[in-house]
Amino acid sequence: MTYAISERMLSMQPSAIREILKMTADPSLISFAAGNPAQEAFPVDEVAQITQDIMNESPIAALQYSLSEGYPLLREELKRFLQDRYSIGSENDDLIVVSGAQQVMDFACKVLCNEGDTIITEAPTFVGALNTFRSYQVNIVGVDMDEDGINIEKLEHALRTQKNVRMIYLIPTFQNPTGRTMSLAKRQACYELAKKYNVPILEDNPYGETRFSGEALPDIKSLDDQGLVIYAGTFSKILSPGLRVGFVMAPHEIISKMVVAKQCNDVHTSILSQMICHRFMTEYDFYAHLDRLKVVYGKKSGIMLEQLDRLLAGKLLYTRPEGGLFVWGELPEGVDMLKFVSTLIEHKLAVVPGNAFMINSADKTQAFRMNFSTPSDEQLVRGVEIMAEVVAKVF
Amino acid sequence: MTYAISERMLSMQPSAIREILKMTADPSLISFAAGNPAQEAFPVDEVAQITQDIMNESPIAALQYSLSEGYPLLREELKRFLQDRYSIGSENDDLIVVSGAQQVMDFACKVLCNEGDTIITEAPTFVGALNTFRSYQVNIVGVDMDEDGINIEKLEHALRTQKNVRMIYLIPTFQNPTGRTMSLAKRQACYELAKKYNVPILEDNPYGETRFSGEALPDIKSLDDQGLVIYAGTFSKILSPGLRVGFVMAPHEIISKMVVAKQCNDVHTSILSQMICHRFMTEYDFYAHLDRLKVVYGKKSGIMLEQLDRLLAGKLLYTRPEGGLFVWGELPEGVDMLKFVSTLIEHKLAVVPGNAFMINSADKTQAFRMNFSTPSDEQLVRGVEIMAEVVAKVF
Repeated sequence: MTYAISERMLSMQPSAIREILKMTADPSLISFAAGNPAQEAFPVDEVAQITQDIMNESPIAALQYSLSEGYPLLREELKRFLQDRYSIGSENDDLIVVSGAQQVMDFACKVLCNEGDTIITEAPTFVGALNTFRSYQVNIVGVDMDEDGINIEKLEHALRTQKNVRMIYLIPTFQNPTGRTMSLAKRQACYELAKKYNVPILEDNPYGETRFSGEALPDIKSLDDQGLVIYAGTFSKILSPGLRVGFVMAPHEIISKMVVAKQCNDVHTSILSQMICHRFMTEYDFYAHLDRLKVVYGKKSGIMLEQLDRLLAGKLLYTRPEGGLFVWGELPEGVDMLKFVSTLIEHKLAVVPGNAFMINSADKTQAFRMNFSTPSDEQLVRGVEIMAEVVAKVF
Repeated sequence: MTYAISERMLSMQPSAIREILKMTADPSLISFAAGNPAQEAFPVDEVAQITQDIMNESPIAALQYSLSEGYPLLREELKRFLQDRYSIGSENDDLIVVSGAQQVMDFACKVLCNEGDTIITEAPTFVGALNTFRSYQVNIVGVDMDEDGINIEKLEHALRTQKNVRMIYLIPTFQNPTGRTMSLAKRQACYELAKKYNVPILEDNPYGETRFSGEALPDIKSLDDQGLVIYAGTFSKILSPGLRVGFVMAPHEIISKMVVAKQCNDVHTSILSQMICHRFMTEYDFYAHLDRLKVVYGKKSGIMLEQLDRLLAGKLLYTRPEGGLFVWGELPEGVDMLKFVSTLIEHKLAVVPGNAFMINSADKTQAFRMNFSTPSDEQLVRGVEIMAEVVAKVF
């Protein structure tokens, strides 16, 4: 039979990155295309001990239905953590646990946007968020970025001229894909614009804890005394992405609607996963683990950047992130980026072409994304060598 | 600030059952209002061993990102299981893992329905599915049920007269809330109507494995040689609801769109949860466990029904389910059902008023739902006693 697919899903395609990742099943190919946290950052022994303890001490609670809002002890611990470490959270806010930060993108859109409403994003931005927004048939308006984050004049222009703007989606810290971090002045300016135009900010902060150099900046949510910021966090980069545990802090009114969305979508997040996160935060030295992460990511990014400096300085531009998982490369004008990327693949190196992160993937860009957390140290060294070999041939 | 909540979520409320369940935090109250599987049915020792084995043998795989389609070994095992045990699945079908069967309701709606399209359901039906459908602003048309399932004439009338019918949502086996099972003749008739009107059936089968008496009937999906049936299954009632693992088998074209919906919603289901399910199916005697379930549920339903027969026969009507978790009671005309339910609560017994399961909760019904899987044996006995005491006072 023929199926009547809904309008919202008719033109939706699997993410371009997935298609590239399929090729990376080839073991001879080095992949800078993924976005996986470094596996050496996983606290394997601790999680093994924790799961054993949970199954000994409270197996029924770990297996039975639980609350849509999340495991109460984890919610409390996360509120305390965000307040203590980042001065995030007020009387006006509540926090629920969701199945990874991706689900926050979904629920924020579901709760705040009608079809045809506008969401403003950085351009380029996280393809997973873009796809979620597309699936709600909203109008996505991308705003260019400078080195220190979104261009404030262009953001205000968009807020002033676009109709029915319901949300400003930002990744202020170690933005995906660019690796850039928004300056404090721009964080304040974004917040002031949100206030002026009465448009909530969705602040996505998956990478904040991976900072391996430079000074941490306040999250926009920590400036929020008016209930304007929806803050999305996740255990994916600090404990494990496979457990699928994220969280969202937002004003009560928005959270109460997100709880209904949660009930309608998956009832609640795996309670075993939530109990693991809670015990890891409270029974182990969580802050020491976060410090260990910085060492892992600092080392891996260092290997990639050193090798880029040695072999490709002056040949292409690339960012020097202070955290996160990505380096953003940019080819000189005149070089065909898509052809460059496919030549890399022929030489057994995968990167993600920048257009995957554009609001309109047909827009022209010279950029591409390199991930340093997933490859082994040897693969980082060899991968940049391959790139240098291809650059020598192509440019 | 004031938030512009989307039209779809503006009128959505937390489920009425949740509100009742909040009262059941009172330890002196006996709850027949839940829908939790019996905790004595959880294979605690096996899951404890399995989690230890996983964390010893493949900790990185259990913690790293995984595929949106689900854990490949679990998908294969589920396909084999459904084919071997129920003759479900053809070349035309594929199967993916999701975060509980609730997510199938969401994705089916997301993929197949535009705003204003029609979904036909049994009336009454599962409130969780109704709320998901409502959140997509579809037109829900309820069709009355007979003792042996949905009324076929009324179903055809709805198919003939309603516009843009995109889905027929059915729980053929141990329907929630009524506990009724659709006859084979009606299963065939539903399938023929789906074919005639070219409308897919969403067959929700959370309770099939709990059958403790009578003969199993073929699932509608097992009749499906035309790619007309989307089949939703779950580990919630056979292993654990807290792990949040369900699955959907459907034609490739629908599954490929559901995979995109999955990517946009929560990327993938907890891989640790999926690995637990896979090992439980393959390393233990899964069929023996399913037999054990039948004993547990048969015993608990027997206690409730015996006590109802002893104290309330002739005073109210109630179903005699052959599986599932629920008995559906019906009060004589002239008794105020909502008042009866609140009087029960005053006497420390919670049941769910039938209108919670109606398409329009303002519709009049004399029915209410009783759950026998969650209360202890003593609570089952005492709960029905309380009901008899209230009936003696009220009628």
